[in-house]
Amino acid sequence: MNNYAAVVEYDGTNYKGFQAQPGEVRTIQCELVKVLKVLLGDFEGFSYAGRTDAGVHAKHQVINFKTERELNLYKFKWQANCLLPPDIVIKEMRTVSKIFDSRRSATLREYSYYVSNNNFHSAFLKNYSLLITKKLDIGLMRKAADKFIGTKDYKSFCNDNLGTSLTVRSVYSFKVRNFPDGLLVFKIAASSFLYNMVRIIVGTVLEVGRGDRNLESIDGALEARDRKLAGKIVPAKGLFLTKVLY
Amino acid sequence: MNNYAAVVEYDGTNYKGFQAQPGEVRTIQCELVKVLKVLLGDFEGFSYAGRTDAGVHAKHQVINFKTERELNLYKFKWQANCLLPPDIVIKEMRTVSKIFDSRRSATLREYSYYVSNNNFHSAFLKNYSLLITKKLDIGLMRKAADKFIGTKDYKSFCNDNLGTSLTVRSVYSFKVRNFPDGLLVFKIAASSFLYNMVRIIVGTVLEVGRGDRNLESIDGALEARDRKLAGKIVPAKGLFLTKVLY
Repeated sequence: MNNYAAVVEYDGTNYKGFQAQPGEVRTIQCELVKVLKVLLGDFEGFSYAGRTDAGVHAKHQVINFKTERELNLYKFKWQANCLLPPDIVIKEMRTVSKIFDSRRSATLREYSYYVSNNNFHSAFLKNYSLLITKKLDIGLMRKAADKFIGTKDYKSFCNDNLGTSLTVRSVYSFKVRNFPDGLLVFKIAASSFLYNMVRIIVGTVLEVGRGDRNLESIDGALEARDRKLAGKIVPAKGLFLTKVLY
Repeated sequence: MNNYAAVVEYDGTNYKGFQAQPGEVRTIQCELVKVLKVLLGDFEGFSYAGRTDAGVHAKHQVINFKTERELNLYKFKWQANCLLPPDIVIKEMRTVSKIFDSRRSATLREYSYYVSNNNFHSAFLKNYSLLITKKLDIGLMRKAADKFIGTKDYKSFCNDNLGTSLTVRSVYSFKVRNFPDGLLVFKIAASSFLYNMVRIIVGTVLEVGRGDRNLESIDGALEARDRKLAGKIVPAKGLFLTKVLY
């Protein structure tokens, strides 16, 4: 059995998230599986690094699948990209060891959240950023971001319908970068993330940047393990899965 | 009479170019004029810096119009942006002198052409770049670009259906920049451009980069004043109007 990994990029605007769902629901996984079936007939062990939500994008999602067939990866990538819809593309393919699993083997995932801090929303960024017209305090947001670095219980910063008890995660880095035309990028890397964790953390940091919340309230929210003490979740359209390391 | 200028950004993908045309044709000018009529009732002297073709985008188009009314520009911009379709946005507004004309007063126009030199086409750049899979020689393309700088007769590098005799233009700069993931940006600035001039020049430079044309052929093409000696025109979707100076 051969195990192949692919780096996939997609514009999530018109999809109900990555994961296949019952019923007539358009997801990234369905489109990828459809193409793999056309090209391979049969395959097994489909896995992926990050379960992105409806409307979330990826510059660097990693998937893997197993097949008895020996693939010419250059040719296979071309064929797959011809069959995939224009908003999903395979960037890179690689043969990986039999025990590699794109989800379980991942040691770091990085997400980037885009904010347009300006008094108009760029025609090119409307589907890819959140517009905030009030001038944000970047220095203060960097201090807020620092509070999330480390191994902590993020129970307050997730939407946990399944009542997961394991809410401790390791956040390795969290940077707030500013670019011309008021573009801000919030880059956060962790071992793995809880459900909606990035969007709730970014929402909380933005409340600090707006002056609607003080820095100390973040310590309190982390300690309390209570979703109600964290900030509002930000929209999916500004979020990108940007890196996965193994 | 007050004269107002606006910097406009648009994604040209779904438009038949900037200029209003007879019949049921969707153009950027029509959308802008429609909104100005709603907000002002009446206005005159609508002008614009660059007549972008169907599918061409703008990060920085400049328009102006005259009205008897005194406008609160902050409020007017908000109102206009609410009424405009999401792929057209006013970035900035300014009161200008009575004699300012966004087309005739312009002293420099800059266009940027985006090329994805890679073996896949990014899901985010499909409508905004030309994919070229053959590895391009950037050093050679920079030498080719230099040949277009100066005051020259660009008769060979335009599609001239009207038989314009004034085909001399001044190209001030022409740079080829490379960014990660094989993204190349061709930035060209001139007093003004002939019809299709940027896209034919970029097409010619790309033929040099591909090895399909030698550097000296550019001198020959410039001298000959014959469209047949220049390169193929590149698609509109990679072209952006990026700067206008006055």
